[in-house]
Amino acid sequence: MDTGRLEAFSDGVLAIVITIMVLELRPPHETELAALRPLLWVFLSYVLSFVYLGIYWNNHHHMLHVTRRVSGGVLWANLHLLFWLSLVPFVTAWMGENHFTSVPTALYGVVLLMAAIAYNILERAILAVEGPDSVLATAVGADMKGKLSPIAYVAAIALAFVAPWLSGALYVAVALVWLVPDRRIERAVQRHLDEGAVPGGRP
Amino acid sequence: MDTGRLEAFSDGVLAIVITIMVLELRPPHETELAALRPLLWVFLSYVLSFVYLGIYWNNHHHMLHVTRRVSGGVLWANLHLLFWLSLVPFVTAWMGENHFTSVPTALYGVVLLMAAIAYNILERAILAVEGPDSVLATAVGADMKGKLSPIAYVAAIALAFVAPWLSGALYVAVALVWLVPDRRIERAVQRHLDEGAVPGGRP
Amino acid sequence: MDTGRLEAFSDGVLAIVITIMVLELRPPHETELAALRPLLWVFLSYVLSFVYLGIYWNNHHHMLHVTRRVSGGVLWANLHLLFWLSLVPFVTAWMGENHFTSVPTALYGVVLLMAAIAYNILERAILAVEGPDSVLATAVGADMKGKLSPIAYVAAIALAFVAPWLSGALYVAVALVWLVPDRRIERAVQRHLDEGAVPGGRP
Amino acid sequence: MDTGRLEAFSDGVLAIVITIMVLELRPPHETELAALRPLLWVFLSYVLSFVYLGIYWNNHHHMLHVTRRVSGGVLWANLHLLFWLSLVPFVTAWMGENHFTSVPTALYGVVLLMAAIAYNILERAILAVEGPDSVLATAVGADMKGKLSPIAYVAAIALAFVAPWLSGALYVAVALVWLVPDRRIERAVQRHLDEGAVPGGRP
Repeated sequence: MDTGRLEAFSDGVLAIVITIMVLELRPPHETELAALRPLLWVFLSYVLSFVYLGIYWNNHHHMLHVTRRVSGGVLWANLHLLFWLSLVPFVTAWMGENHFTSVPTALYGVVLLMAAIAYNILERAILAVEGPDSVLATAVGADMKGKLSPIAYVAAIALAFVAPWLSGALYVAVALVWLVPDRRIERAVQRHLDEGAVPGGRP
Repeated sequence: MDTGRLEAFSDGVLAIVITIMVLELRPPHETELAALRPLLWVFLSYVLSFVYLGIYWNNHHHMLHVTRRVSGGVLWANLHLLFWLSLVPFVTAWMGENHFTSVPTALYGVVLLMAAIAYNILERAILAVEGPDSVLATAVGADMKGKLSPIAYVAAIALAFVAPWLSGALYVAVALVWLVPDRRIERAVQRHLDEGAVPGGRP
Repeated sequence: MDTGRLEAFSDGVLAIVITIMVLELRPPHETELAALRPLLWVFLSYVLSFVYLGIYWNNHHHMLHVTRRVSGGVLWANLHLLFWLSLVPFVTAWMGENHFTSVPTALYGVVLLMAAIAYNILERAILAVEGPDSVLATAVGADMKGKLSPIAYVAAIALAFVAPWLSGALYVAVALVWLVPDRRIERAVQRHLDEGAVPGGRP
Repeated sequence: MDTGRLEAFSDGVLAIVITIMVLELRPPHETELAALRPLLWVFLSYVLSFVYLGIYWNNHHHMLHVTRRVSGGVLWANLHLLFWLSLVPFVTAWMGENHFTSVPTALYGVVLLMAAIAYNILERAILAVEGPDSVLATAVGADMKGKLSPIAYVAAIALAFVAPWLSGALYVAVALVWLVPDRRIERAVQRHLDEGAVPGGRP
């Protein structure tokens, strides 16, 4: 079974999740610039979540690009990831409308943590199909970023009850680290091609 | 006529149906954890419906993977299935917001029953085009799960007027049975390939 | 320029338009069956619009299946059609919530009429690219259904101010006539293949 | 990395952005034609934004049609463009519901300006991958329209505080100029083919 329809369905869900968040940005009834001030935090949390969903789409794209076959388990691991990402608009709105207060800010971290775990499960499910010698296996390697971000999320969840603005700063920091595209896969593909390998179907 | 655009359109509708359900999860105005308690049942019914729609997407994906041609009848049978699935967000919200009371819980079962019947009609419409010797025909075979779940839905609809929590348990049980991916088709494809058959276009 | 992305974008818009209509079906706060009665007309108009959008998707699918190249004019003619179809949820909700009263019922007909005209313009734009000897040109031919439905819509718009239920009946009747899939194109493709023609790219 | 999934995801986001704007067109409770009058400006701003998003989809389609490879930078430049376009429904609703008053009309221009800049950044990111001898590079050339529209947006933003109807007229004028499809790329492709070039993969 190839990856075409899995990618198409994931693209659809991610495109909708990233877009319906904007429905929380309700136009105010007044028309002065000051009327937009209450929306500032909603807007900032929208930007943050847009970047996170963009990172997920980007890395999902890279990972499936070097995936050749999917199993039933991969389909469900992917749906599990999409489930947690589908909760992002809810926690974004709750956190933004309450100006980054403790509980909503912690819950935002919980959803990010669960999504990170779900992404990890999906990666392992794909590796189980692809095998240890696949392009993906060599590309993922030590995966420092993938191991550090859950720790950052757990720290942010705990910090939310002490200083929620520090949790917010942590979320921004993790996003910035990930904004750098996952060059490991690009590099592994390149190395693979340099060694004269002719990958089946996809590089 | 090939199946590409039928799959793309179905993916689009299913992606939207699975995602707009989350719009019913409205962020509360308070910021304590207790403020989320009233959302518990809405959340649980969201999880249940997410799994059901995931199962439909999964099986739809498997079925169309072994389908080579579609007719006008298949296109309409598919739209008929999408119609019933499009009602899932409505019955999910009604059941969740009313904490699984009788009538909403029964109506949830009615929509699941109609979707199951619609899926069956779609399967037959495809088999009419593919013929009795097709991969799909040998894959479907006796189809115990497909015959048992409508019976479970009818039982759940009746039980909803006596003990709605039992209906809920039945919906969860049916979902768990189906969560196991439909290996029949995977196995039939494998057997087909083992016998040296060279399927046209798709396996 | 091929038709792939035009079809993908149209599928996306049609999938969203057909699905967001269900957001108008708001779950009532009561839990008796009687609480659904006020939703009856909203539901019936949803079914009607679902069928109309299904017909448009179906015929759009058939038409682009025999289209090989698209021009800038075709892209805009397609967006023009999508614009009128995007207004269907609005007029469906207005007509359904007001139980098929005169003005909303007439406006529903106006949107159907404009969509029919837009579809016709799109057909002509494609024929201008494909040429008079194309499969599509022979398939469309006299096009009785395409000429009669605008007349039916105009009649329904006028009747809405006298007997709106008659307009509703006319909308249902036109939908039923169109539910029969457009076999003209299927037959023309068949005839084309029988004559030994080898169509370029797509049949 | 090819452009397939980038186009699919962009199509998804653009299809949703263009469609959810219609959710702001809320059906009135009255049923006379006069009840639609308050919606007139919301409708007109919907038409304007529909045309703008149509132009973006159209030009995005043309640009990626002559793009053969994408880099990580291109993926993020594309997400950046989609971010600004995702704000169009918000500013459309604010401007429409307040009948083109100063601040909302200026903010509409700000979003159009940012989207134009984002499109420009995307174009440069693609050109950096494709190289100065690519079809796209010769197609873009002097790009008068691309340089004039930001100036028009800046003028419209300033004018909004003096005569907002003039800003509205400028937005309409820019849309009309762009409605003419970007024939530069079509022509460059044609010239390329006339010179006997055999483009790799895509023309």
